[in-house]
Amino acid sequence: MSKTIDVCLSPQLIDLYDLEGKIVVVVDILRATSVMTTAFAHGAREIIPVEKLEVAREYLSKDGYLCAAERGGEQIEGFPLDNSPFSYMDGVVQDRSVVITTTNGTVAIERSMVADEVLIGSFLNLSSVAEYIQLQNKDVIVHCAGWKGKTNMEDTLFAGALVEKLKMSHELGCDTPHMALKYWESVKDNLTETVESSAHARRLNRLNIKEDIAYCLRIDEYQVVPKMIGDRLLLV
Amino acid sequence: MSKTIDVCLSPQLIDLYDLEGKIVVVVDILRATSVMTTAFAHGAREIIPVEKLEVAREYLSKDGYLCAAERGGEQIEGFPLDNSPFSYMDGVVQDRSVVITTTNGTVAIERSMVADEVLIGSFLNLSSVAEYIQLQNKDVIVHCAGWKGKTNMEDTLFAGALVEKLKMSHELGCDTPHMALKYWESVKDNLTETVESSAHARRLNRLNIKEDIAYCLRIDEYQVVPKMIGDRLLLV
Repeated sequence: MSKTIDVCLSPQLIDLYDLEGKIVVVVDILRATSVMTTAFAHGAREIIPVEKLEVAREYLSKDGYLCAAERGGEQIEGFPLDNSPFSYMDGVVQDRSVVITTTNGTVAIERSMVADEVLIGSFLNLSSVAEYIQLQNKDVIVHCAGWKGKTNMEDTLFAGALVEKLKMSHELGCDTPHMALKYWESVKDNLTETVESSAHARRLNRLNIKEDIAYCLRIDEYQVVPKMIGDRLLLV
Repeated sequence: MSKTIDVCLSPQLIDLYDLEGKIVVVVDILRATSVMTTAFAHGAREIIPVEKLEVAREYLSKDGYLCAAERGGEQIEGFPLDNSPFSYMDGVVQDRSVVITTTNGTVAIERSMVADEVLIGSFLNLSSVAEYIQLQNKDVIVHCAGWKGKTNMEDTLFAGALVEKLKMSHELGCDTPHMALKYWESVKDNLTETVESSAHARRLNRLNIKEDIAYCLRIDEYQVVPKMIGDRLLLV
């Protein structure tokens, strides 16, 4: 067993990790990477994640792009799509190019791009991501998007769940995967209640999107693995 | 209950926290804050923690200071003291002014100085720190020194142990104290075995200082609470 799995709990710490030659799994459970997983499962052709709102705005006037923008949990005016997974169902994104910018998730993607492969992880596609990784002979880093740089509960829990899936094939790279794994093991049987008490769930509850939270915690709902190819996400 | 406890897992994230008016507990279990606790318990008059090696070096030529310097786990040449708690016993530091610079711990102290009070926490003085905090009407932030910016096991576990002590008097400020608490609860019955497997313990083991680790995990060995007053630590 020479492959390793490591965990980075914030985009503000990712520069401390050597990403070269590795797979980075970006996770922003509430809700960017859950939304991206959902969009692909509902037929999106590609997703262009962008860090800056101004760049997303440029796509609004271009033909053929469906644009989503969120900051602080709320939809930005002028953008047709918000950051709720339910907005990406019912044929809305079928065969479409989707442009997404969010508070945390798209930042984490941009800061991961030096890696060999950048994947999108969520509880919705947990096992598919784990299985894809097991077919590659590469070290893995789980990059938690967190909340405005701070470490958060739901992304750390996903990291722990992925460590659990890969711990037989990948050595733990430092202390953080152990922390995430133990945290996951200690709350996984009460996942919904636990995450409903998270700081971000409390923020989202103020915005009346409690259903989103329950949805984003469903495990293995879909079998899709989104991966960055150039400047956009495609399915592997 | 209007007081809160929050946890910051790395000095590289501390700028995201508002420290003003709050108590910050700096923790670097292996080994800076364990050493500082030990030094005070063995009669040190004061400790001057400095971030930069050059500044510590200036004290070498001054009268009346006993100087310690560590980088990457090893003693720096020319300094009489290293970063092992056993070097601070047997009257060595009795009534002395001690100057200390270390890889992570003294960095975390310097970055905490905007707080109202900066305390030194370790397993060795866990309950004393908790009791002191309970007598103040202030919010608390546990500032984990980590390892060169990365989050680590032993400091996170101390944070969880302090959250456990204070959870009846202090609300959890965001997700991170919950993460630390659950992590602590899940491994506290196997603390030594767990920390012996940590990345930093493996680094220290290479340096043949396994006894230091066991010592730094002793809980409530001493009843001292070191606190920054100006540029130096004194007992409260």
